Amino acid sequence: MNIETAVATATEDLMSNAIRALAMDAVQAADSGHPGAPMGLADVATVLFNRFLNVDPKDHLWPDRDRFVMSAGHGSMLVYAINHLLGYDDMDIAQLRNFRQLGSRTAGHPEFGHAKGIETTTGPLGQGVTTAVGMALAERMHNARFGDDLVDHWTYVLAGDGCLMEGISHEAIDFAGHMGLGRLILFWDDNSITIDGSTDVSTSTNQAARFTAAGWHVEAVDGHDKEAIAAAIEAARADPRPSMIACKTIIGFGAPNKQGTAATHGAPLGAEEIAAAREVLGWPHAPFEIPSAVQDAWREVARRGGDARAAWKKRLAASPRADGFQQSLARPDTEALSAAMGNYKHRLSKDAPKVATRKASEMALEIVNGTLPNTVGGSADLTGSNNTRTSEMRPVTSGDFSGDYIHYGVREHAMAAIMNGISLHGGFVPYGGTFLVFADYCRPAIRLSALMEQPVTYVLTHDSIGLGEDGPTHQPVETIASLRAMPNLNVIRPADAVETAEAWEIAASSESTPTALCLSRQGLPTLRTRHHDANLTARGAYVLMETAAARDVTLIATGSEVELALDAAMRLAEKGIRAAVVSAPCFELFATQSPAYRLAVRGTAPRVGIEAAIRQGWEIMLERNDGFIGMTGFGASAPAPALYRHFGITTEAIIDSALKLMGRN
Amino acid sequence: MNIETAVATATEDLMSNAIRALAMDAVQAADSGHPGAPMGLADVATVLFNRFLNVDPKDHLWPDRDRFVMSAGHGSMLVYAINHLLGYDDMDIAQLRNFRQLGSRTAGHPEFGHAKGIETTTGPLGQGVTTAVGMALAERMHNARFGDDLVDHWTYVLAGDGCLMEGISHEAIDFAGHMGLGRLILFWDDNSITIDGSTDVSTSTNQAARFTAAGWHVEAVDGHDKEAIAAAIEAARADPRPSMIACKTIIGFGAPNKQGTAATHGAPLGAEEIAAAREVLGWPHAPFEIPSAVQDAWREVARRGGDARAAWKKRLAASPRADGFQQSLARPDTEALSAAMGNYKHRLSKDAPKVATRKASEMALEIVNGTLPNTVGGSADLTGSNNTRTSEMRPVTSGDFSGDYIHYGVREHAMAAIMNGISLHGGFVPYGGTFLVFADYCRPAIRLSALMEQPVTYVLTHDSIGLGEDGPTHQPVETIASLRAMPNLNVIRPADAVETAEAWEIAASSESTPTALCLSRQGLPTLRTRHHDANLTARGAYVLMETAAARDVTLIATGSEVELALDAAMRLAEKGIRAAVVSAPCFELFATQSPAYRLAVRGTAPRVGIEAAIRQGWEIMLERNDGFIGMTGFGASAPAPALYRHFGITTEAIIDSALKLMGRN
Repeated sequence: MNIETAVATATEDLMSNAIRALAMDAVQAADSGHPGAPMGLADVATVLFNRFLNVDPKDHLWPDRDRFVMSAGHGSMLVYAINHLLGYDDMDIAQLRNFRQLGSRTAGHPEFGHAKGIETTTGPLGQGVTTAVGMALAERMHNARFGDDLVDHWTYVLAGDGCLMEGISHEAIDFAGHMGLGRLILFWDDNSITIDGSTDVSTSTNQAARFTAAGWHVEAVDGHDKEAIAAAIEAARADPRPSMIACKTIIGFGAPNKQGTAATHGAPLGAEEIAAAREVLGWPHAPFEIPSAVQDAWREVARRGGDARAAWKKRLAASPRADGFQQSLARPDTEALSAAMGNYKHRLSKDAPKVATRKASEMALEIVNGTLPNTVGGSADLTGSNNTRTSEMRPVTSGDFSGDYIHYGVREHAMAAIMNGISLHGGFVPYGGTFLVFADYCRPAIRLSALMEQPVTYVLTHDSIGLGEDGPTHQPVETIASLRAMPNLNVIRPADAVETAEAWEIAASSESTPTALCLSRQGLPTLRTRHHDANLTARGAYVLMETAAARDVTLIATGSEVELALDAAMRLAEKGIRAAVVSAPCFELFATQSPAYRLAVRGTAPRVGIEAAIRQGWEIMLERNDGFIGMTGFGASAPAPALYRHFGITTEAIIDSALKLMGRN
Repeated sequence: MNIETAVATATEDLMSNAIRALAMDAVQAADSGHPGAPMGLADVATVLFNRFLNVDPKDHLWPDRDRFVMSAGHGSMLVYAINHLLGYDDMDIAQLRNFRQLGSRTAGHPEFGHAKGIETTTGPLGQGVTTAVGMALAERMHNARFGDDLVDHWTYVLAGDGCLMEGISHEAIDFAGHMGLGRLILFWDDNSITIDGSTDVSTSTNQAARFTAAGWHVEAVDGHDKEAIAAAIEAARADPRPSMIACKTIIGFGAPNKQGTAATHGAPLGAEEIAAAREVLGWPHAPFEIPSAVQDAWREVARRGGDARAAWKKRLAASPRADGFQQSLARPDTEALSAAMGNYKHRLSKDAPKVATRKASEMALEIVNGTLPNTVGGSADLTGSNNTRTSEMRPVTSGDFSGDYIHYGVREHAMAAIMNGISLHGGFVPYGGTFLVFADYCRPAIRLSALMEQPVTYVLTHDSIGLGEDGPTHQPVETIASLRAMPNLNVIRPADAVETAEAWEIAASSESTPTALCLSRQGLPTLRTRHHDANLTARGAYVLMETAAARDVTLIATGSEVELALDAAMRLAEKGIRAAVVSAPCFELFATQSPAYRLAVRGTAPRVGIEAAIRQGWEIMLERNDGFIGMTGFGASAPAPALYRHFGITTEAIIDSALKLMGRN
């Protein structure tokens, strides 16, 4: 080690110890939190930021910044400490003093949108790793469109043992290896500790061999040897494959009596141990106090990032692709989409043959993808069944990132988290497909779409017993309700091609709400024959067929069951009973309508709800004594018409329910 | 190859072709299904059954039978064909002719309980692999208790590319390798095809290296070379590690124009191609017709299984452990549990300090585990937080399977599926813990617990914003509703230590319904001071505090919010308002009560529901115009008391809601 390196290392050690001190002190002040990971990873993070990573606290959304993801989100104090030291203006010391307190930006886990310099919400393990894969993929796709001048950044992710034990990590790692995402570098916090104690208790996987098997480049270093860390990062950046750097670390490094044990993981160290750690680390400063030399060193990192951004700005100004680049990051042109979709809806004929809404979704997607330049489609190995690939789409491959269709493989969970990453990265608007029932496989990532307010679209086909022979494992009965339960998720179950087009207009225009489209496998007639100039689906529910005089009963249905409701209404009319039919494709949007509108739609007459699923969630439409025709348990394997008869979801059942409500049976 | 082998192989080839023919014919008859996998795997399956696997169609529940799991459940015709050929009396040829039809046992995917010889429900990919891991673990644990004489069987699982791409497979494979489950043999149907086409489209993982990294023994064979397959199985059985046999197969083997392509995966081959396949395979027989020589060869397999069972029966009769063995497979002694729990409840004092229901769960578990000899606990790396390990429990390790506590690692999804496997295997009653919000991570396997009617218990702690600082990623707000949506799952959210004891009695006594226990992180007072002789939780909801005269209002709450309801009722009484308090720990059990009981509990006065979660699902308790105090969106990071105030879940809010309903505000 020459003198220059020694000095650099000495300063870097202080920079690392600043992270450690802030993490100890903030967790202690909150009497809650996880000091172990930030203390263990402080050296790795310092080297990464000090020598490699480019961000600019003055422009935290600079598009070509490097992305940093703390997948082990419980170690949030690492992020907050660094962002404070870098000088983000929304992360002053008061934020750190108020770690985990109401209203502070320093939540228990890093929350996207709470503070600058938080690229994604983490905490649910494995999500950060997979979201980072999405960011790294988006970077290459954006690069393929706009070149090295404008898009040329790295994605770094810190992951713990928990992240790598979670199943989603397998999907992410395999996908990243297959796609050859060479600008993704994952640091494994190899500290041999989980909450239950030594990792020996539950795992003996050779992680290096595992990553190698998936096509990754692997380095292994002492996670407290800064030169070794730097050399490994250099090697990782030089390798064309995604890289995993196994960093052998000591959890809670610096806490003399507790380091290396689970005791540092999820609880304050205590005043005594913190004092001892200050001694060991040579950090005599008061809690939350950072000496100016250390502060200056961290600000120098920010300055370097600022210089990089300035250089990039010059390149952007000189680039012939600047306009296209800016457009790719702007909001979609919703007016153009609305106009195109309006024209398309007018072309839909009620005399057309039946069409499944999954097919109608493909038809609408032709409009979406033809109008909006930066949609990115995909499916978890069900492309032909989900109808997610439109005519002009080309696959994204490891050799050519200029495509716009992603074969996610049989990896629903990764698909969802990767879409979150693509959306967070910017430049693209992702959608992806699987069967509705397998929304369960990606539910934790759907939840993060909703929590982070990312306008990702889930194309969920085969949406009821109407899928037929595949049977109960594949038939959602509770899935729609479970998705409706999730805050900030629009669940849309269109009844026909017109509503499907409107649903896509809503999804593709959304700014901050993800959408789950529930689409039929079976063919459905076109029922909406009027009001094509308005997007009635956007009202959540609307009167599809009104009665001439006061209603005797209102039939409210969604998706494939609207056809049954109309049929029942017609047959009730033959009996002299006035039944209105309400199509209710989206309960969440209906909930946002005015009370007067909702009352007008629901009416005051008795109601029958019809949906080939459970009743839970229908309280927005129905009174407790109203009728409901649907499912009460799991489905069965048989052709769809037989199942509808078997489970009593029929025109006759609707009529019976209506008559019963009217006291006429 | 000597002559004897050649003859054996020739017969075996006919045995395999019988599977192929039945698969082709049944899918064609149904005009729906997946012929590719059964045809591709016919050789592997034939060798396995003909030379190794012991089952007895005359006693399909023989405890020491080998377990066979078709994880690639879409290839269900492989199972049905084999079970027909083996002579299971509920799988006659009419069942195969009625493949995928209403009321037949031959559902689109193998459904546990529909027919003998189906060890688990498969179809959602990766579940079978992981459930098989649970079975193999249970085998070793049972063996550790009762010895080789009584427990000495193998678990075989066939998995496709999809199974191995799913994240859950990573959790399963790592866990099995770590536990050294040497009697688990996984056949990988390495056919290089998924629905979207060649596997090259989405994966390039070296599966052999991947399994090796996880501690498995790996063999690779031509999946149509019977001697090679047999040799690989021999080698696998000789190796102490779990084994993966990579079988290079041709999907749809025998269909001359379609084999090796995705076209054989999920659609009938068509009459022409089937005729051509009959030609190629040298199978001139009519559809569903099996020549007697082939039939005899398969029956010989069943006879060998019957002999093995007879020998085992003799060993059982001679064993000093026979009684204990039989008891381990019998229903739990619910009377003893009820008595013990009754005694325990009487010891709980209302004057005791507050106790979190997660801690109360541990206290109740001491009774459960002390009374029932074959409970098996565990946690997905949150043992100390879930309070799942009671005082006498010892960990199950690769070196010692006599323990009864499983460190599942950070693998919620595998934990759930492994518990399904343990339960299906028999001999043990499993429970496992994680945070409630992470029920999302294991939801597909919880769904299978419910669908297969396995009495698995999920210990889901940290059940609301009451967990505090960890913030919105860790705070369930919609999770309880999403679990209540699932058919055949009892979701119990006890209010105090008494209800928690009752909840455990229900869970541990359940025969065919899994239980999700939602438990608080924060301390709660003991509210139930009477009726300890009855299990009031089993009624789903009950009047905890009745009014002296007719009710003005009924406050209905669950879990940690019952305390608030009681407080509000007391303060309303000060205003002269008569408020009854209902504790409603389990909506599903309440739904099974008589209308009269339900009416008596709910009352006819206005109601206020209180739960620190969303309202969806409360329609079983509330009218649409009743009040509700709970959550409407995601949580936040702060100490719990601050969050309750912030989100307005307070005594004051309950009082305001009650007054408003009574027109008195």
